[in-house]
Amino acid sequence: MDALTLSEMSEEFETPTLLASDALKAVFRLHASGVAIITAATAQGEPIGFTATSVTSLGSNPPLASFNIAQGSSSFEHLQKGSLVAIHTLGNQNLALAQKLAGPKQDRFNEVDFVTGPEGLPLFPSATGYLIGRVREVFAVEANAVVVLDALSAKVSQEEVKPLLYFQRGYLTAGQRLSDNF
Amino acid sequence: MDALTLSEMSEEFETPTLLASDALKAVFRLHASGVAIITAATAQGEPIGFTATSVTSLGSNPPLASFNIAQGSSSFEHLQKGSLVAIHTLGNQNLALAQKLAGPKQDRFNEVDFVTGPEGLPLFPSATGYLIGRVREVFAVEANAVVVLDALSAKVSQEEVKPLLYFQRGYLTAGQRLSDNF
Repeated sequence: MDALTLSEMSEEFETPTLLASDALKAVFRLHASGVAIITAATAQGEPIGFTATSVTSLGSNPPLASFNIAQGSSSFEHLQKGSLVAIHTLGNQNLALAQKLAGPKQDRFNEVDFVTGPEGLPLFPSATGYLIGRVREVFAVEANAVVVLDALSAKVSQEEVKPLLYFQRGYLTAGQRLSDNF
Repeated sequence: MDALTLSEMSEEFETPTLLASDALKAVFRLHASGVAIITAATAQGEPIGFTATSVTSLGSNPPLASFNIAQGSSSFEHLQKGSLVAIHTLGNQNLALAQKLAGPKQDRFNEVDFVTGPEGLPLFPSATGYLIGRVREVFAVEANAVVVLDALSAKVSQEEVKPLLYFQRGYLTAGQRLSDNF
């Protein structure tokens, strides 16, 4: 099979070829993500947190997790090497919590049930689970950063979980199971 | 509110506290992911690829995407700075493709429809979309790596997309839309 140039590819698929940031946006509109909430504490012990769709596992030995953040975010300075951080997994019942932690910063911990864990870390008992980790690396890339955590401890719900998803600028529930992968 | 120690937290939530890799595994069992296929070419022009659940967007200006890979993977050597890579987004109709690209390495491009793009890059026209990017950074962390791409171009399906998900060791379809986030 002959190799195609980018303009020939355009003809092959009968759809326009998108470039650079248009390309990125169009493709990630087609990609679904799990929704999580990241929390930490300021040096003064104030809770901070935000809703994130970039949480991934980065290997189990040693156990590592990662998420992305804009360096311009007000949370970024509290997510440096050595910071204690919690990643909360969310289910359908946490929709309001996900929206709240994606909303105005000053309201995020108002009228929300949380407890204060080690080092002032805010924890949401209503989440389906949370992983506590310590920041090991912060990889800066342009205006953004990949934050890598060493996983320390976790609590998970014993109940059946329906994970909360994000897709095409909205929150979704998971649907039918198509196939197992054992 | 008083701060809790880890052992007090265990009592608070009436579930066991998990540690280290047990903690990571338990929490990521509760986290859903979108499913993607990453492809590239060897120096000899042979196609390589694998199914991935760690694809994220890392900012739009400049447009960047990332995914994780084990450094021990046979694909890793073909995903170095400067390599051309495609991230394919998948829908329900791509379940068999996702399973094939997660299966035995020698079978991944057998009896599968793909075309050869620039620099020998294998592209799956049946995917819901693909983003072509060039590797900008490879951040090694223990036995794993975070691969960061500069987004160059993309093609996306014009049809309505039902994204393919991964959750609790199985493939799922997306369910009901709960809320928009505009």
